[in-house]
Amino acid sequence: MPTAHVTNENLVVGVDLGGTQIRTAVLRGAQLISRVGLPTGEDTTPERLIPRIYTAIEQALDEAHTTLDQIAGIGIGAPGPLDNRTGVIFAPPNLPGWKRVPVRDLFEEHFKSAAGQKIRVVVENDANAAGLGEYMFGAGRGSRDMVYLTISTGIGGGVIVDGKIMEGTEGMAGELGHMTIDWHGKRCNCGNIGCLEALASGTAIARYANEAIAAGQGAELVEFVHALQQHVKEPGSSELAEHDSIEHKQAAGDVGRLHVSARVVSQAAQAGIPLARAIIGSAAEALGVGLVNIIHIFNPEVIILGGGVTQMGAMLIEPALRIVQERAMARPRDAVRIVLAELGVNTGLVGAGALIYYHMS
Amino acid sequence: MPTAHVTNENLVVGVDLGGTQIRTAVLRGAQLISRVGLPTGEDTTPERLIPRIYTAIEQALDEAHTTLDQIAGIGIGAPGPLDNRTGVIFAPPNLPGWKRVPVRDLFEEHFKSAAGQKIRVVVENDANAAGLGEYMFGAGRGSRDMVYLTISTGIGGGVIVDGKIMEGTEGMAGELGHMTIDWHGKRCNCGNIGCLEALASGTAIARYANEAIAAGQGAELVEFVHALQQHVKEPGSSELAEHDSIEHKQAAGDVGRLHVSARVVSQAAQAGIPLARAIIGSAAEALGVGLVNIIHIFNPEVIILGGGVTQMGAMLIEPALRIVQERAMARPRDAVRIVLAELGVNTGLVGAGALIYYHMS
Repeated sequence: MPTAHVTNENLVVGVDLGGTQIRTAVLRGAQLISRVGLPTGEDTTPERLIPRIYTAIEQALDEAHTTLDQIAGIGIGAPGPLDNRTGVIFAPPNLPGWKRVPVRDLFEEHFKSAAGQKIRVVVENDANAAGLGEYMFGAGRGSRDMVYLTISTGIGGGVIVDGKIMEGTEGMAGELGHMTIDWHGKRCNCGNIGCLEALASGTAIARYANEAIAAGQGAELVEFVHALQQHVKEPGSSELAEHDSIEHKQAAGDVGRLHVSARVVSQAAQAGIPLARAIIGSAAEALGVGLVNIIHIFNPEVIILGGGVTQMGAMLIEPALRIVQERAMARPRDAVRIVLAELGVNTGLVGAGALIYYHMS
Repeated sequence: MPTAHVTNENLVVGVDLGGTQIRTAVLRGAQLISRVGLPTGEDTTPERLIPRIYTAIEQALDEAHTTLDQIAGIGIGAPGPLDNRTGVIFAPPNLPGWKRVPVRDLFEEHFKSAAGQKIRVVVENDANAAGLGEYMFGAGRGSRDMVYLTISTGIGGGVIVDGKIMEGTEGMAGELGHMTIDWHGKRCNCGNIGCLEALASGTAIARYANEAIAAGQGAELVEFVHALQQHVKEPGSSELAEHDSIEHKQAAGDVGRLHVSARVVSQAAQAGIPLARAIIGSAAEALGVGLVNIIHIFNPEVIILGGGVTQMGAMLIEPALRIVQERAMARPRDAVRIVLAELGVNTGLVGAGALIYYHMS
């Protein structure tokens, strides 16, 4: 039975609903008791996908040797836009086929006990959930004012103001990737101009590299990538083999053109290729400008950087911190710690579970 | 005697501590019972200025036919940086001579009754106080998530998140004028690059005009200003006479050069002078970009525009709203109302008094 007062000792289920991977887990606080993942797959329609998530949750419960009646609730981190009060997910770009899906109600109905007892289900924006995970169990522990910035394919934010998730009037606050920092810049996918996401995300880094290659400015980078491919093809050198980092797209009008990923650009920069270094340098500068804005807007005690792109490490982070040092106002700058996420790849899962502790404690 | 539970019916004292003007008032909610203002004057040292504020408050109490023991508290809106928890004002640029002044303690000591009874004194950033005024008694009534943006000499913000002032970890949150929107732009007074304040404030509008005049590009504007001066000099036409809108600075290397204010630029734009129209248009565009950022970051129910520069009206506001329409994400854009402040010149005073209702209700 769900207890009235939930503590971090209670078991919860977390679901991290991503565009390529869905992870489910049974958690106690930040501790993963069991974890079951599944690829989101080609057919993402809710009719096909949601039953697969039910099965994964049931499997995670089995693996944790527990049952639903021992679980305080199911927390779901999902791509927006969504309404966290009703648990309805609208039409996320990376979940084709989804339109106004009442995820909370569907899950509550499915997991209702034979006696009609409902389990608590909470749906929250994935960046907010991840931010909550770091706030409760990661690098944000003990703070009251915290900003989590995730830098991967896109850039998202989860903001804690005085100990509470900043939701905004319709649960859409914290779109920190879509603040303009270059008002006469390029259009972002979101429709806005010169967004942080269009300058510092993994997608942006890859795009700048591929544009340069297409414009014939990337000879050295292309050479590096070809050498990397040779290397990958040799048996035993498999670091890149599982990733679709390098591919030759065969789209019309784009025959045989090399497409590189942010990860390859990062490797090329580490190898000293000037174009790659310049691209990463520009992304780092944009990130630094975004951090200055976050410092001036929120006066946070801690800013936590998460997401795959932060794995580039010092090459990205150090120039960004220099921008902060040069440009931010002294008092709020001196008040903030800027650190990497502590929970790593599990931030989203732990955060999803944390939603139950947050709402039921 | 201050009551334990204060309602908006209780009398309070508000103090709006500005760089050129200090206003004090006895208020009941948003209603001004009495008001006593004084010029900040040349000697702004706290030793000289603070006793003058005490006298103004005592005068306001007399004029309201009341006494200190009928007052629930004294709320003070002051320029930052300051610590709202301790009521210490650090070194605001527009209050020369101030350094770590313990305003709350000084006021509490001065206004202590013969019986040793202390009156509650609250010190808050002026933009936060003004925002609170609009939130409780103005255009923000009934909302829970609101952003107040004041556009005058500088640009400041007062943000309400879920019904509470967003303070940040050291009370410095909401510096919305110092978010970069032009990352390769000019340096702002604050040390940062391409701040909204450096592009859309009254100071920025005047600076762009004066730079153009200095570069010899402002012949038509200069002509307009001279005609305006002629007009002002005629008896009976005094609209501009009280303002130092036009002056001939006699600084070294700057002999006899015309300096115009944002207000004159606005008048010239209204008269159709192309340079002036372009300058206001650029400020309006920057404002629009700032509004898009505010919408994406806070997902507010209402954004309230205050401060002297908003008196330019449609010329400034309409192009800014067009930018919002073109660039902001549809869902948070459709959720927001963007309106002008309702309390006008009294926003700061009403907001200062509102601090007492906010903290004691």
